[in-house]
Amino acid sequence: MHRTRVRVVEDALDANATIARANREDFDRHGVAVVNLMSAPGAGKTRLLERALDELPGVRAGVLEGDVAGSFDADRLSLLHIPVAQLNTGAGFGGECHLDANMVRSALPALPLGELDLLVIENVGNLVCPAEFRVGEDARIMVCSVTEGEDKPLKYPLMFRACELVLINKVDLLPHLDVDVDRLLGNLETVNPGVRHMLVSARTGEGVDELRDWLAEIPGRVRAAAA
Amino acid sequence: MHRTRVRVVEDALDANATIARANREDFDRHGVAVVNLMSAPGAGKTRLLERALDELPGVRAGVLEGDVAGSFDADRLSLLHIPVAQLNTGAGFGGECHLDANMVRSALPALPLGELDLLVIENVGNLVCPAEFRVGEDARIMVCSVTEGEDKPLKYPLMFRACELVLINKVDLLPHLDVDVDRLLGNLETVNPGVRHMLVSARTGEGVDELRDWLAEIPGRVRAAAA
Repeated sequence: MHRTRVRVVEDALDANATIARANREDFDRHGVAVVNLMSAPGAGKTRLLERALDELPGVRAGVLEGDVAGSFDADRLSLLHIPVAQLNTGAGFGGECHLDANMVRSALPALPLGELDLLVIENVGNLVCPAEFRVGEDARIMVCSVTEGEDKPLKYPLMFRACELVLINKVDLLPHLDVDVDRLLGNLETVNPGVRHMLVSARTGEGVDELRDWLAEIPGRVRAAAA
Repeated sequence: MHRTRVRVVEDALDANATIARANREDFDRHGVAVVNLMSAPGAGKTRLLERALDELPGVRAGVLEGDVAGSFDADRLSLLHIPVAQLNTGAGFGGECHLDANMVRSALPALPLGELDLLVIENVGNLVCPAEFRVGEDARIMVCSVTEGEDKPLKYPLMFRACELVLINKVDLLPHLDVDVDRLLGNLETVNPGVRHMLVSARTGEGVDELRDWLAEIPGRVRAAAA
């Protein structure tokens, strides 16, 4: 009599998780640490990268830019003379409002992974769906502009929970807003207790050194965790 | 011999379009004009409504609030003493990043349609997906905050094309930003030539009278079109 051994394959039907693992294996093989950068539209992701990736000490960085349409951000970042690839969700991916693991995988051949220590994946501007799709990253950063108001952590809790670092951007505008940054931080603490945050301004440079240090330490932390 | 006549039913498989038509028929039967209000998170939709719906001359207005989680905006608008219903996409709708016709339909029993001239549906904050789902509305307004930058019409063209009115909000902050509003308007003209726009500030009240007039005229325009 034949005995059939049934092995339960967890997540077997979750294509995104399968492809995210394949991405991760590629990243690990090339020794590149990967950050998924998320925010609402216009929160300042690209400008923060322009600041923080410029002269990142001892780290060879690259960027994968995700947008529905256009290559405006990739064009800006290419001025840093680092490898940048543009991924448009509008052409070929039905105008998706987020990056998923398969889209990221399709773009990897455009990047010299073996020559990078750190890859930043700048997601499509959206406070909902990007949080639902892992793409093979080691860490997730979200940017929240103070101009968006104090209530965003409570209204978009999944996004604020799905990250290891929250950048509160555009703090130079606080004197001109009716926004209480302590209340914003209290709401963040409510949905993601203890999460690391930094008050930054891509415009004035406030807090950018702290962000640069955090980014520069990721490749070492990933290597230490893998060893 | 039987002859079978095959009638092609357009959009028969598009459940959203079918339900949007049903919503529209309900709105028409009750004589209520409907506006779908869309923007990125934190662009100022609710605060503009607080301003514009207060003392809207001769128009009985109500609001359907769409959010992933919470009822913060509905609570704020209820202070205007108008009918307000809250629709959460997080509970029961899988945390959807937009409202669709079926979600709106599920919320209609919570609103006294027969007592309204104008219903404003405040969509989930998102510059991508809400533009893809008609919900039975007569007109679509989108709000773009100047803090989001000049490039948003080019990066999210579907949203900027899918509306009859674009509100450029937070213009009181322009002196404190590196944003050229003429360039923003030029990009808007590129993706949606001739679309009506207004420069507004929910904080200072600039442009709110013009918005209030536009909203007050919608019920009459809808009735005239139906006659």
